[in-house]
Amino acid sequence: MAPQLDGYFKQVDDMSNHFIERLRQAVAIPSVSSEALRRPDVVRMGHFLADELTKLGATVELRPLGKQHGTNLDLPPVVLARYGSDKKKRTILVYGHYDVQPAEKEDGWNTEPFDLTVLDDGRMFGRGSTDDKGPVLGWLNAIEAHQKAGIDFPVNLLMCFEGMEEYGSDGLEDLINEEGKKYFADADAVCISDNYWLGTEKPCLTYGLRGCNYYSVEISGPGADLHSGVFGGTAQEPMTDLVRVLASLVDTDGKIQIKGIAEQVAPVTKEEEGLYDGIAFTMDTLHEALGSKTTIFEDKKSTLMARWRYPSLSVHGVEGAFSAPGAKTVIPAKVIGKFSIRTVPNMEIEKTHQCVYKHVQEAFDKLNSKNTMKVYEQHSGKWWVASPHHWNFAAASKATQRVWGVQPDFTREGGSIPVTITFEEATGKNVLLLPMGSSTDGAHSINEKLDKKNYIEGIKLLGAYLHYVAEEPMV
Amino acid sequence: MAPQLDGYFKQVDDMSNHFIERLRQAVAIPSVSSEALRRPDVVRMGHFLADELTKLGATVELRPLGKQHGTNLDLPPVVLARYGSDKKKRTILVYGHYDVQPAEKEDGWNTEPFDLTVLDDGRMFGRGSTDDKGPVLGWLNAIEAHQKAGIDFPVNLLMCFEGMEEYGSDGLEDLINEEGKKYFADADAVCISDNYWLGTEKPCLTYGLRGCNYYSVEISGPGADLHSGVFGGTAQEPMTDLVRVLASLVDTDGKIQIKGIAEQVAPVTKEEEGLYDGIAFTMDTLHEALGSKTTIFEDKKSTLMARWRYPSLSVHGVEGAFSAPGAKTVIPAKVIGKFSIRTVPNMEIEKTHQCVYKHVQEAFDKLNSKNTMKVYEQHSGKWWVASPHHWNFAAASKATQRVWGVQPDFTREGGSIPVTITFEEATGKNVLLLPMGSSTDGAHSINEKLDKKNYIEGIKLLGAYLHYVAEEPMV
Ligand SMILES: [Zn+2]
Ligand SMILES: [Zn+2]
Ligand SMILES: [Zn+2]
Ligand SMILES: [Zn+2]
Repeated sequence: MAPQLDGYFKQVDDMSNHFIERLRQAVAIPSVSSEALRRPDVVRMGHFLADELTKLGATVELRPLGKQHGTNLDLPPVVLARYGSDKKKRTILVYGHYDVQPAEKEDGWNTEPFDLTVLDDGRMFGRGSTDDKGPVLGWLNAIEAHQKAGIDFPVNLLMCFEGMEEYGSDGLEDLINEEGKKYFADADAVCISDNYWLGTEKPCLTYGLRGCNYYSVEISGPGADLHSGVFGGTAQEPMTDLVRVLASLVDTDGKIQIKGIAEQVAPVTKEEEGLYDGIAFTMDTLHEALGSKTTIFEDKKSTLMARWRYPSLSVHGVEGAFSAPGAKTVIPAKVIGKFSIRTVPNMEIEKTHQCVYKHVQEAFDKLNSKNTMKVYEQHSGKWWVASPHHWNFAAASKATQRVWGVQPDFTREGGSIPVTITFEEATGKNVLLLPMGSSTDGAHSINEKLDKKNYIEGIKLLGAYLHYVAEEPMV
Repeated sequence: MAPQLDGYFKQVDDMSNHFIERLRQAVAIPSVSSEALRRPDVVRMGHFLADELTKLGATVELRPLGKQHGTNLDLPPVVLARYGSDKKKRTILVYGHYDVQPAEKEDGWNTEPFDLTVLDDGRMFGRGSTDDKGPVLGWLNAIEAHQKAGIDFPVNLLMCFEGMEEYGSDGLEDLINEEGKKYFADADAVCISDNYWLGTEKPCLTYGLRGCNYYSVEISGPGADLHSGVFGGTAQEPMTDLVRVLASLVDTDGKIQIKGIAEQVAPVTKEEEGLYDGIAFTMDTLHEALGSKTTIFEDKKSTLMARWRYPSLSVHGVEGAFSAPGAKTVIPAKVIGKFSIRTVPNMEIEKTHQCVYKHVQEAFDKLNSKNTMKVYEQHSGKWWVASPHHWNFAAASKATQRVWGVQPDFTREGGSIPVTITFEEATGKNVLLLPMGSSTDGAHSINEKLDKKNYIEGIKLLGAYLHYVAEEPMV
């Protein structure tokens, strides 16, 4: 039986100005986690959330996480909260973050970044509007609308809101692992709202993310940087070796040249083959996002597969070489090439390391160089794929259809959201990524915005999702 | 008839403390040309030189050079001076620079860099001691010793001392070209003292320098930097293309892969073949200077030829890519690779450009990339080779034998001293490079020093050279 949602939806509409005011208050707190001087603002934002939740009747804890790695600076607390503890209801664990990316008017913002500016066309500009204060407040707003409408809240809600997401989620993994069977013990499923629609028109549910293995290749020879006039032609140059090694990794069309990578990739199934054509995504949108037509593929399906289900290798740069504008005739003594591989099912981190190390070693050996080469991992994070047939996704799909009137796309993403896999492993439960904003919100750039429609319908969606989740058969 | 030099030499020895004091006064003026805030000190240094020269009876002009390129900062003046105008004497034009490289105690100096510190073993530490205040004062000291000893000065001396050498000699080329047939009109030969012995034991005369063509390869595609999670695998990456293009330029053993370069290099003559074995240079010294044993060749002759008479290509770095420590998953939108070729006789600048452009274009075309590539020259300077059989060199050789008791090595250098070729072309006269310091003086590094012996014997050498120059038959 489909849940009765009209009363809730009407209440959300009636309270929309109040919800926008709440977002304005949140955006006004410049909770930039990457800047030490803003740390008090990040903490203030955590307290703001805790106070709002307390007023709504939730039980709230502000969990300290100790010092920021390598500093004497206190990390902002994680806001852990529970709303409801009815043993007869399901329990949903939700995650979001209350910190934001840096923003300065001078960077090119058209409005004051920490002053929510709502235009007539519904665009609401402000740092954190879509990433991730809008979605976080969405859960609070859903609770409040239920209370005001006198509708019983359909589930017990566990909340985990952190304040360091934009700066590496320092300390969070340990906390989640520790609380997996304690604070989060009765969670039946997990929902994360911290990503975006694939485009601007159609909502989506996200069930997969690529992983990332990040590598350094370090080549050194001379004791110090040399002058190319004096030593050019007489010394073997680390930079010469490095560009040759880096050139061996991948070709212009993104084909990884390292043996043993393609072999690990899960084959495309019949079911998957049919999946891409229906997705709301066009090459035009891609060209627009890219700012050019320099794509590897000309068609949607190949492009989506390349982003979601095939590995990619990017060369990011070189440390230790001349990198400023102008001309400098230096022979750098030690150079470190940086590259990473986006990983997909069924690639294994350790096996991939071994393929990379072997390839790089062989490429270097071929040069017959007297220089010294080291290749090593900087960090790695596993890919993640959930079952989109799980009741958690079924509920979200029905809720989306109810709110937006369309079947959502089932999408994967090319990037990583490491907390996803941490929650999955710590709780052993299905994790759903349920986005509120759209692809043009500009999460990490200037003029970040959230459309009023996405915010208000998003609040309805979060509430509706909880109603469907409460009813969906657990199969 | 060999000139009578004993009286002069004795006078130099008697005045050595006075000459060291003069060097101390000069080193104490931190005439760092690359730092705007030090500009008044550079100017003060120019005035110090002018005053000293005036006291010695020279006619001195402080020539303004206008504003520093792209700034509102006055360039330090060029000190132009004439000592003697006897029509019956030859006229020698000498060049040096009175500015110095930056230096801070904190960079790792063992002594205060602008406080000349003379150790018991004769090493005199101080910024500018060897580069180039010692040699510049050498000319002043030679004049003064002649006066004190009552010995007639053997030539008319024209002096050109600049204050921007360490920062690109802004404005100097125009002045030299303008004065070639005016202030410098009666110069019979040119002598520059601004380089170093090849080793530490044996003096040398330098008759050749390599040139330098500096290039940029710029590859761009996307409108802005991209996130490798979102775009990796779907966009053609400029950095992937760039490392492949850079990898095509040169191999680990320094062999340039660009067609048409080797073809321009002058063949080794029979006479030249025999020239290298006698040079005071060992692979041990090279390994020490290099701080490693990562040389391309194992023998002296190949190494010297590679440094002096063959071209070399160095890849200096990449602008626009990630270059900091740590890990960043960026796909840079526009990257600029920097490399340069050290050029030798008979390479032509323009012809070399064409070979480079053609090679890079073909290497890029092979990639079949949709990205955009541009290759262009940043700056170029021609190689220089003088005749070591010229009377200017013969005089310097005899003077060296008289002062140091050995036949000097006739050497070339791998680097460029652009002013050399400017003087040659502007005056049409033979140019000699006559070094005072030795290879371990550390001209541009911390703990720069000049050995007391090199300074005092160097003053004798400069004076002796002028006596031999006055007598050498002009053939
Ligand atoms: Zn976020
Ligand atoms: Zn973010
Ligand atoms: Zn110099
Ligand atoms: Zn210098």
